[in-house]
Amino acid sequence: MTATAQDNIVLPGGAVGVLGGGQLGRMLAIAAKRMGYRLHVLDPVADCPTAHCGDYQATHPYDDAYAVRKFAETADVLTFEFENVPAETLEAITKVRAIHPSPRVLHTCRHRVREKEFLRDDAGVPVAPFHVCRSADDVAAGMEKLGAPCILKTAEFGYDGKGQVRIDDPAQAADAWRQLDPPEAVLEGFVPFDREMSIIIARTADGQTACFPAAENEHANHILDVTIAPARVSDATQAAAVDIATRIAERFDLIGVLAVELFLVKQNGAEQLIVNELAPRPHNSGHYTFDACVTSQFEQQLRAVCGLPLGDPSLLRPAAAMANLLGGLWFNDAGEPAEPDWPALLALPDVKLHLYGKHEARPGRKMGHLVAMADTPDEARAKVIAARDALKR
Amino acid sequence: MTATAQDNIVLPGGAVGVLGGGQLGRMLAIAAKRMGYRLHVLDPVADCPTAHCGDYQATHPYDDAYAVRKFAETADVLTFEFENVPAETLEAITKVRAIHPSPRVLHTCRHRVREKEFLRDDAGVPVAPFHVCRSADDVAAGMEKLGAPCILKTAEFGYDGKGQVRIDDPAQAADAWRQLDPPEAVLEGFVPFDREMSIIIARTADGQTACFPAAENEHANHILDVTIAPARVSDATQAAAVDIATRIAERFDLIGVLAVELFLVKQNGAEQLIVNELAPRPHNSGHYTFDACVTSQFEQQLRAVCGLPLGDPSLLRPAAAMANLLGGLWFNDAGEPAEPDWPALLALPDVKLHLYGKHEARPGRKMGHLVAMADTPDEARAKVIAARDALKR
Repeated sequence: MTATAQDNIVLPGGAVGVLGGGQLGRMLAIAAKRMGYRLHVLDPVADCPTAHCGDYQATHPYDDAYAVRKFAETADVLTFEFENVPAETLEAITKVRAIHPSPRVLHTCRHRVREKEFLRDDAGVPVAPFHVCRSADDVAAGMEKLGAPCILKTAEFGYDGKGQVRIDDPAQAADAWRQLDPPEAVLEGFVPFDREMSIIIARTADGQTACFPAAENEHANHILDVTIAPARVSDATQAAAVDIATRIAERFDLIGVLAVELFLVKQNGAEQLIVNELAPRPHNSGHYTFDACVTSQFEQQLRAVCGLPLGDPSLLRPAAAMANLLGGLWFNDAGEPAEPDWPALLALPDVKLHLYGKHEARPGRKMGHLVAMADTPDEARAKVIAARDALKR
Repeated sequence: MTATAQDNIVLPGGAVGVLGGGQLGRMLAIAAKRMGYRLHVLDPVADCPTAHCGDYQATHPYDDAYAVRKFAETADVLTFEFENVPAETLEAITKVRAIHPSPRVLHTCRHRVREKEFLRDDAGVPVAPFHVCRSADDVAAGMEKLGAPCILKTAEFGYDGKGQVRIDDPAQAADAWRQLDPPEAVLEGFVPFDREMSIIIARTADGQTACFPAAENEHANHILDVTIAPARVSDATQAAAVDIATRIAERFDLIGVLAVELFLVKQNGAEQLIVNELAPRPHNSGHYTFDACVTSQFEQQLRAVCGLPLGDPSLLRPAAAMANLLGGLWFNDAGEPAEPDWPALLALPDVKLHLYGKHEARPGRKMGHLVAMADTPDEARAKVIAARDALKR
């Protein structure tokens, strides 16, 4: 059985190349292995989480366009899990192989100004009011327009709450600008949201789409802490999330998987969704799908990227919840290194443990996650949080 | 995070070594990766299915006791997926590391005479009447005792219908003996069974057990074709299967996973179970558990071997079915090589495809399998067979 590509279809036995070797690549590799694909990974670090599950690793920096092109030639089709691949690198790849989602989608999503303008002007979906800033004066002008409080966010390289600062008073505008010191930033008006949510959509080249149930996300220290699926919202709001994700995916001509982060605003009992940001790849808030859905977000990525029809995104049980395992769990209350209590966790028979094979635990570093299923979202949430508590030393 | 062994527990981050690198090892590797374990494999063939998913491969014959011992030293605990590892090799391993299930269990299960006598005399579970044969004369004497028809089975190295012959007339005894030409064989009385079944049990060092739902198995050309879970039998028969498996596992002091193949005999409306044979490892008839149960047979193997509590073996949906993909599917009606119709299969959104990464398709060779879930066993069976039909060229 050899790699076969025809009509842009990469069949089982073929090789999928992924730029970035973190946990998202690792779980893609596992999905690929189940279906008989080869998985090639490019990452600057040799012993990355994906390398443990792959067939071939190229260990090069992302800005080594020659090496990346040579890597691309080893695979039948390419995708990415790391968003900050330089544009020149992506261009080098497209000369030799298809990469999905397209560099155009990545170009938009990794720049907050382009992303916001795309969402508002091209996709026509609700976003928080915003003002583009290239100087401290722009921030002050924006504050006047949007009113306090606001959030100033760098246009590039922000994640997990990094690269953003809240401004409660226009007098703090210059300080905030100096603190971030970006070439460009977005000033966002404050959204009095009730909850954070996300929805993950997959789309194929011929326009088939499939959405996972929209989920609720709880953050701690700006890092995703717990995801609950399905979100405890009205059916109309679930349907609205699907509509928003579908408009964005279609406007992008997306081939692959896209996560849409949302704010849920409640006014006079009515629920409204506002798009916060996009990630054109599997997302931490979709990790529950690996255990809890007929098809995982990683298998959907594989199917879409390989030109195959999408799988069924339904939940296997009525509800599921995911809790991240951050590096802090590898330390006791005194701050000393201490292995988490795995036997206590694993004594809970229906909690699924995922670890990414990272050697060094640092506080805040994503080391793994837990998934629990239940009859209701509340039960699933309580179960997964209790399970994580069982790990603490 | 480094490998940690304490109180015979191998924690996540540790390395599990597996003797044998086929699809069973591959799926164990996937289960291990999800939970952050390293997976080491020993197989005489470098490019074996497990190697694609493992961290470390030793490429040596199973009878190279020195090399196997050195391999064992690379891992924290050992298990196997290949039953014909020589006794000397297993002894070499036990000098340096624990291997589960124990060589004693393997010694019994891979020899039909020892297995039958263990089942009847030690475990006290129902088996077909049998007669041990060391010559053609023994076969004739056995036929007299058991009556025609009988099945003559070699004591060792039989699988998928190989090493056995049906004898309808005592006059054929000498021919049958000459045909198999074994040092030792078992002559089995004919069991007028209604269906074939199996049940898979996991057991830990401290005696915890967990059984997957007993399943029905359909064979074609003596090779497993379709498994349906749960078996369409009475609750009493399901409970009887659990009792039988538990007696065997306890009698063995099993640490690991064991498959019990059963015959279902129906007399005057009553259902009776007779044990056919054992496999002290995950089993083809348990592949449905990978997609369809909260915990797979491979995760149970990992947990038991690593000294951890067992997971929940429940089905995620009411029923599931598995269909094997044999190499014949890689040929068209004219016998010419032809890639199966993957896009047609994958257009069925809720059928799970598993391929083992084998390069050469030969008729009868197990290349992969499909799993479907449904509300009833009949629906699951129909769905998975229709899905396999979609692959045919």
